[in-house]
Amino acid sequence: MSEELAGVLERIENAIESRDDAKVRELTENLHYADLAQVYEDAAPENREFFAEILGSDKFSEVLPDLPDTLVEDALEQFEPAEQREMLDSLPDDDRVDILQDVSESKRQDFIDLLDEEKRNSTRTLLRYGEDTAGGRMTTQIGKIRANMTIKDAIDFLRDDVESTETMARIFVVDAQDRLLGKVRLRDLAFNPWDTPIRDILTDEEPSILASADQEEAAKMLARYDMVLLPVVDEANRLLGVITADDAIEILEEESTEDMEKAAGIAGETSEETYLNTALITHFKRRAGWLVILALLAILSGFVMMHFEQTLTDIFLLSLFLPMVVAAGGNTGGQASTMVIRAMALGELDPSDTARVAWKESRLGLCLGGLLALVIGLVAIFAPPAFGATLPDGNNFTQFGLAVAIALAVQVTTSTLIGALLPIGARAVKMDPAVIAAPAITTIVDVIGMVIYFTVAASILNLPS
Amino acid sequence: MSEELAGVLERIENAIESRDDAKVRELTENLHYADLAQVYEDAAPENREFFAEILGSDKFSEVLPDLPDTLVEDALEQFEPAEQREMLDSLPDDDRVDILQDVSESKRQDFIDLLDEEKRNSTRTLLRYGEDTAGGRMTTQIGKIRANMTIKDAIDFLRDDVESTETMARIFVVDAQDRLLGKVRLRDLAFNPWDTPIRDILTDEEPSILASADQEEAAKMLARYDMVLLPVVDEANRLLGVITADDAIEILEEESTEDMEKAAGIAGETSEETYLNTALITHFKRRAGWLVILALLAILSGFVMMHFEQTLTDIFLLSLFLPMVVAAGGNTGGQASTMVIRAMALGELDPSDTARVAWKESRLGLCLGGLLALVIGLVAIFAPPAFGATLPDGNNFTQFGLAVAIALAVQVTTSTLIGALLPIGARAVKMDPAVIAAPAITTIVDVIGMVIYFTVAASILNLPS
Repeated sequence: MSEELAGVLERIENAIESRDDAKVRELTENLHYADLAQVYEDAAPENREFFAEILGSDKFSEVLPDLPDTLVEDALEQFEPAEQREMLDSLPDDDRVDILQDVSESKRQDFIDLLDEEKRNSTRTLLRYGEDTAGGRMTTQIGKIRANMTIKDAIDFLRDDVESTETMARIFVVDAQDRLLGKVRLRDLAFNPWDTPIRDILTDEEPSILASADQEEAAKMLARYDMVLLPVVDEANRLLGVITADDAIEILEEESTEDMEKAAGIAGETSEETYLNTALITHFKRRAGWLVILALLAILSGFVMMHFEQTLTDIFLLSLFLPMVVAAGGNTGGQASTMVIRAMALGELDPSDTARVAWKESRLGLCLGGLLALVIGLVAIFAPPAFGATLPDGNNFTQFGLAVAIALAVQVTTSTLIGALLPIGARAVKMDPAVIAAPAITTIVDVIGMVIYFTVAASILNLPS
Repeated sequence: MSEELAGVLERIENAIESRDDAKVRELTENLHYADLAQVYEDAAPENREFFAEILGSDKFSEVLPDLPDTLVEDALEQFEPAEQREMLDSLPDDDRVDILQDVSESKRQDFIDLLDEEKRNSTRTLLRYGEDTAGGRMTTQIGKIRANMTIKDAIDFLRDDVESTETMARIFVVDAQDRLLGKVRLRDLAFNPWDTPIRDILTDEEPSILASADQEEAAKMLARYDMVLLPVVDEANRLLGVITADDAIEILEEESTEDMEKAAGIAGETSEETYLNTALITHFKRRAGWLVILALLAILSGFVMMHFEQTLTDIFLLSLFLPMVVAAGGNTGGQASTMVIRAMALGELDPSDTARVAWKESRLGLCLGGLLALVIGLVAIFAPPAFGATLPDGNNFTQFGLAVAIALAVQVTTSTLIGALLPIGARAVKMDPAVIAAPAITTIVDVIGMVIYFTVAASILNLPS
């Protein structure tokens, strides 16, 4: 957000705080709906009704779709039923359905009953699609014409719907059974002779998506093919609606946020409210689960350390490089899993590529392990004696450095491979790679790292017996 | 990617492998350019010329913009200068500029010289904007009319440019000095009387962006305001071009990928090639840097462990919970930094919110620390005796559990706060929060965790003297 805009929003918030009607009205006059929604969300709950009243039902109806899910019902309830009807009526049908999905089931029916019959029916139809499907996200208010029309027929036909149609960037051409044949651009209508048959100027429509498909798939298609609109069809290829590029942006941003959060062990749905507006208890619930599980699992590493008590107390200098070897595994495993999870999210990889990923990452793991072994091995040979550290009789620092280097190389190579293959394995068994990989990798790699380190050290160094 | 599409691409790859012209031609006939670009990228380097030849310069010119940067120059060089001219000529100017930015400087001049004078000049102008700015990303082939025209004038005026104009979803209205006044929709032209003055139907254009602004800022504006096109202007508000929603999708996906990679300690520019097509050495270079630095820093934790040798050997049972306490700090710090970094990326937070973030996260840290302390404290009291573990004289397991619990609570609270505030601090001093936070947090939290654990244990437990 620009600093100028942030300043305006703050002044509005102050004006609301001091209940200064005139000031709020003046400052909000030229503001975009998305910004007004931000002000509403940021306002203290007891000030929201005051603000909604100033905006009025007409303006507020455009603010509604930009509000976080959790605030929608209360926001609507601040208005009279007659105003609610007007507000719901004026919205494009995808926004109306979105809003109705956000209110409690008991209220939903009341709101639907406010609509006129036509809108009530189309709303009910759309509500049947799951919220996360292409059908649940599409808008049905699109330009649709028949292939056997002329341009003049088409323009006359479209004219009736021109105000209710959300987008005319593409006008879709269907046959008598409503099956999708292709598209024309509005400019093709505007700049061709009026008696041209639509059939002659239509372009075969390329990709389309089933209404039952995941909304994420729709968004990825729009992204891959640089499309402005993606047609949504049923099993018989009948045109139902479109997903727009701005929907795709929203869906892809949500998915990225979710993937980042999952990788950090944050569970549950991403909050629609901003970070600061999300309640403490919500933050707590999303973070606590994995923390407890991971803490319990991390005791396993402690068991391994207990098991090697003798080795560690015999050569306590081993502790100088113990945290490093363990951490190096976490770092390399984390890098590999991030690369692979993101490549899968972008559609570049799937489980059929397992062998190629394994081949690539095992070579990478060896190279990275080799480099680290060289650097840290040299440190282990030369640094401790410089600090006056000693080893038990029968050992020298070359052996010690070698032990550290070999353990590190093995740890890094196995961790890289585990980090790369775990997410693919998760995908192969239909689990979410992002949610499984990070915690599992941390735990596995930590335990394995301890075992590798102490085992290698015990076999290379001479422990006092 | 759908399985069906993946299957088609594989069959094409096999046909290319066996140099089967007819088959390749047949399979690629109805394929989208983005998919053809994928095939070209996935093909072995020695097969690419064969494939490019089959597609021909006409079709290949549409494939070019979808190729990874690194492949563009070689791809162009496979064609004769006359074909190169045709290819560059046929592209929209933003794509042409993108491509010219990807070729070496010595070649760039040759390619520019192929263009006719008008395109040469506009290309040179666009090349002056940085590759990552709004100006460098915009397309200039837009519909632009004067406010003093009638609809008929406007349509006649636009008709000449109808084929070269990339987008007519919005037509922009300017004054005699080319300053942006507002916009009309093509449908407003198509469905209003022809003598209506443009001035009467124009809508005030809301947000626009300076050509020198970062492309990410442009993408975020498109996302925030659900826009299809964002006008790009110069300091005098003269309209230069537009950024489209599909550009925004690309920019935002790149940014998300970069942020995820940075959080995993992967350095440098995100590869434009797919994971599998990126060279081993590129993967290696991007991952090695932070690994070496982090490994060296992790030796600090080893120093702390060495420092507490006596405490650890006196009560070796402490090692059972040592890795857990350290890891819990990394996990909570990682969660907090992920939340804050993403909130900053989405424009929800900036350094002025530091106090509110600190207040929120310190309470969260206390709650999470309290919960973990309770769970793990109970484990520490009851589990070790059940396994037959003993403590030195003068200690009991209640004390031991209390020591573990207190250390864990302190570690989790401080780590949460560090994880949340470090990225904000980085942003405040104009550093990239994503690149700084993760490695710094890991190192700091590991070291602090060891110190906290041993200090708390030494002060609560009775060590044999």
